[in-house]
Amino acid sequence: MLMSDRLNKQLDFALEIDKEKNIFRQTHLSGHGRNENDAEHAWHMAVMAYLLKEYSNEKIDIARVMIMCLIHDIVEIDAGDTYAYDTEMLKSQRAREDAAKERIFSLLPDDQRDEMTAVFDEFENNQTPEARFAHAMDNLQPLILNNSNNGGDWQEHGVTAGQVFERQSKTKAGSLTLYDYTCKILNDNIKKGNLKKG
Amino acid sequence: MLMSDRLNKQLDFALEIDKEKNIFRQTHLSGHGRNENDAEHAWHMAVMAYLLKEYSNEKIDIARVMIMCLIHDIVEIDAGDTYAYDTEMLKSQRAREDAAKERIFSLLPDDQRDEMTAVFDEFENNQTPEARFAHAMDNLQPLILNNSNNGGDWQEHGVTAGQVFERQSKTKAGSLTLYDYTCKILNDNIKKGNLKKG
Repeated sequence: MLMSDRLNKQLDFALEIDKEKNIFRQTHLSGHGRNENDAEHAWHMAVMAYLLKEYSNEKIDIARVMIMCLIHDIVEIDAGDTYAYDTEMLKSQRAREDAAKERIFSLLPDDQRDEMTAVFDEFENNQTPEARFAHAMDNLQPLILNNSNNGGDWQEHGVTAGQVFERQSKTKAGSLTLYDYTCKILNDNIKKGNLKKG
Repeated sequence: MLMSDRLNKQLDFALEIDKEKNIFRQTHLSGHGRNENDAEHAWHMAVMAYLLKEYSNEKIDIARVMIMCLIHDIVEIDAGDTYAYDTEMLKSQRAREDAAKERIFSLLPDDQRDEMTAVFDEFENNQTPEARFAHAMDNLQPLILNNSNNGGDWQEHGVTAGQVFERQSKTKAGSLTLYDYTCKILNDNIKKGNLKKG
C-alpha cells in the first residue's frame, strides 16, 4: 500500500469516530448538567485510569488501558448506547455491536483494523488485568458523576441498589480498593434515600 | 497521608475535570455540527496520537503523549478557550492559565500535582519529542474537522491562509509526513475558496 493510501485510511477512521461525540449516555454531567456523550466518557475514563493506576489489583500496561478506555464504545456510533439496566436492549446488544465493529474498524489499514479489534475484544472479554482495570473505570466514572448529582440517574430509571451492586461488582476484579470505595458511596446513597433498596 | 485521603483527593480532581466538557471551542463537529468541547477534542487527539504514532519524527513514549493530549487543556476550566487567532485574548492567556494550573492540579496529592504539572508544562514548552507530536495532534485534529466542513471555522473568523500556515507549521517539528498532508489540505482549501489567501 502507498504511504498516502495508508494515511488516508487512518484519517478516514479519525473523521468517522468524530460521530462518537453525538452518542449520548444516560449519565448526566456534574452540577445536574446535560447527558454525557461517549467521547467525553472515554476521555474521563482514560484520565482516571492514568491517575488511579496504583489501585489496580494487578500490574498493568497503562498505555493499553488508556487506548482501551478511549475506544471501548466506538461501536455505539452505529449500535447506539445501551443503558446498563435496560434488559430488553441488552439482549440485542451483541449482534448490533458486532456489525458495527466490523464496519468501523475496517476503515483502518488491515494491521490496525486487527489491532484495534483485538483491543476492543479484550475489553469485552474482560480476561486481562488491563481489561479488568478499564472495566473498573467504566463503572467508577459514571458513579462519581451520579453521586455528585444525588443519584439522579438511578432515580430517573427506577434502578435498585441490588442492580447497581451487581453491575459495580465487576470493579472488584480490577481494584479491591476502588470496589471498597464504591460500596461506601452506594451505602451512603442508600442511607440518603438516593438509591432505593431491593 | 491516609490511603483514603489520597483517594479522596484523586477523586475530587476527577470530579473537577468533568467541567472541561462545558468548555467549548471554535471548532465545529463534522457534518456541520455544534461546537466541540475540550474533553472531546482531547479524546480525539489521544486516539489519533495512538493511531498515527508511526509518523512521529522521533521515537516517542505513547503513554506520555496520550496523557499529555488528555490533560493539555485542563486549565481552560478556569481560563476559558482562547481561539488560536484571537490576538487580544492571546496576550493574557499565559497569566490566566498559570493561575488555573495552580488551582486545579493542587486538588491532587502532592506527587501527582507535580507530575501532572510537569506533563502540562512539557506540552506548553514543546521541547520534547512527545510534546512535539502532541502539538501535531492539537493542529491536525481540528484541521480534519474543519476540512470536512469546507473550512467553515476559518470563514466564520475571517482567518487567512497565512495565519493558518503559521499555526500549522508547528506540526513540522512533530511529523514531517503529517505536515506534508496538512499543506496538501490547506492548498486544496485555498483552491476551493474555503480559505482566503493572504
